[in-house]
Amino acid sequence: MIDCGEGTQMQMRKYRIGFGKIEHIFISHLHGDHFFGLIGLVSTFAMLGRQKPLHIYAPQGLKEMVDIQLHHTQAHLEYDLVFHELSNREPGTVYEDDKVTVSTLPLAHRIYTNGFLFVEKPGLRKLNIDAVHRYREIETCDYYKIKKGHDYRMKDGRVIPNSELTLPPPKPASYAYCSDTAYHEALIPLIRGVDVMYHETTFQTDREELAARTGHSTAAQAATIARKAEVGKLIIGHFSSRYKDISGFVTEAQSIFPATVPAQEGKDVFTWGKV
Amino acid sequence: MIDCGEGTQMQMRKYRIGFGKIEHIFISHLHGDHFFGLIGLVSTFAMLGRQKPLHIYAPQGLKEMVDIQLHHTQAHLEYDLVFHELSNREPGTVYEDDKVTVSTLPLAHRIYTNGFLFVEKPGLRKLNIDAVHRYREIETCDYYKIKKGHDYRMKDGRVIPNSELTLPPPKPASYAYCSDTAYHEALIPLIRGVDVMYHETTFQTDREELAARTGHSTAAQAATIARKAEVGKLIIGHFSSRYKDISGFVTEAQSIFPATVPAQEGKDVFTWGKV
Repeated sequence: MIDCGEGTQMQMRKYRIGFGKIEHIFISHLHGDHFFGLIGLVSTFAMLGRQKPLHIYAPQGLKEMVDIQLHHTQAHLEYDLVFHELSNREPGTVYEDDKVTVSTLPLAHRIYTNGFLFVEKPGLRKLNIDAVHRYREIETCDYYKIKKGHDYRMKDGRVIPNSELTLPPPKPASYAYCSDTAYHEALIPLIRGVDVMYHETTFQTDREELAARTGHSTAAQAATIARKAEVGKLIIGHFSSRYKDISGFVTEAQSIFPATVPAQEGKDVFTWGKV
Repeated sequence: MIDCGEGTQMQMRKYRIGFGKIEHIFISHLHGDHFFGLIGLVSTFAMLGRQKPLHIYAPQGLKEMVDIQLHHTQAHLEYDLVFHELSNREPGTVYEDDKVTVSTLPLAHRIYTNGFLFVEKPGLRKLNIDAVHRYREIETCDYYKIKKGHDYRMKDGRVIPNSELTLPPPKPASYAYCSDTAYHEALIPLIRGVDVMYHETTFQTDREELAARTGHSTAAQAATIARKAEVGKLIIGHFSSRYKDISGFVTEAQSIFPATVPAQEGKDVFTWGKV
């Protein structure tokens, strides 16, 4: 999970996202709209008898706020709540397992803020099942090694090169989350070519100065970052309530980067608004 | 406002309750479902430029939690946030103005908890406009004194008794909020004859022992309090999610106290489910 504003647990229930699926929460910065829902989620996990650890990656201060609330509410956690304090102003890896790497994207906001970059690791190669079937002696138990990229050695000593037996693995997906930030070109090399980028667009160009002063971006600025970084798709959000509807944001961004869609609750970032 | 769970500000927007109307917030106890929405509301008030003071009546500990969150989020309040720390275990008045008196109702929960009793003060008497019109010399500017109960002295010296010119004021309304609590007969004399009582009913009688152990009430217990205190109407809520629907709570309570209605979001406690 990335950020956890007030009401997150209600939204999870609404969209039937199992509480047990959440093992890591990445908090970009300590403005309330990005973390006021965390204590409720942590408490609800406790009430439901959660056992498995929950890891939270966040700037200094969040642990103190959560701890004092757990203390006063006399909550008893049967699971480990593990805080990983972020303080580095350089990009770096904060989490890695055999499927994904998560790195920080230092942003330019009013307070210390990180975006996060999620890069899937390449999966196993796909079996070319027709090719495999041509060699009767290859058995099911050999498949895993072949999918990992090994050549196959026949009983008669011949070597079948892996390239004959497999197809490339599906392209690993990548996603960059950038909120909240002013226009920040230092992002570009860090996110170059990602499949999907979420970038905040609090304002439109009519309030470019206000955006700069408050550490936010206009739709045009987000689209410029997307274009320069050659991302696959731009999702925009965090719209100021000063604007009556969001069509102006979309129009402004699409004029610079056509593959732009507005964020929408409950959607999958990879499949939403296929462009 | 009484209690302020997570998402309260969203609910207020949904039901179009103006943020400016809230001047006093009464927090019954420091379990998260009763105050996790407060910091969001306090922060939103700040963002909207609120100037007028906000008074919070709550057990010791809430101020520390709110202050530390305001500190880490670097929020700047232009209004006074005034905490009134509740610690008394005897009932007592915590707020009073010319319209209403608010008193604590000490409850029997796992941690220090107060319910709250709201008693309207009698309003002005109603003008008996036909009677007033019989005396041509009574002018509009005399009405206020008459509504306050004064007799009217004619220019010729005759005194018209107030009872001839007015009707009694509307009956002052009273409302008792009792959550969370085990069955607690000490409440009865404190709430006798109130128009409306909200009383928690976390469980039904099948889990009476669990109710006692966790400091909660069954529907039958709440109804028994309502019957013994001769309240006008009982509103029940705080239903455990162990029960698939709420009809069992209503049936159980109504068998003891027929004038029972289940709480429903967005309703006025006085007009909801007229019984």
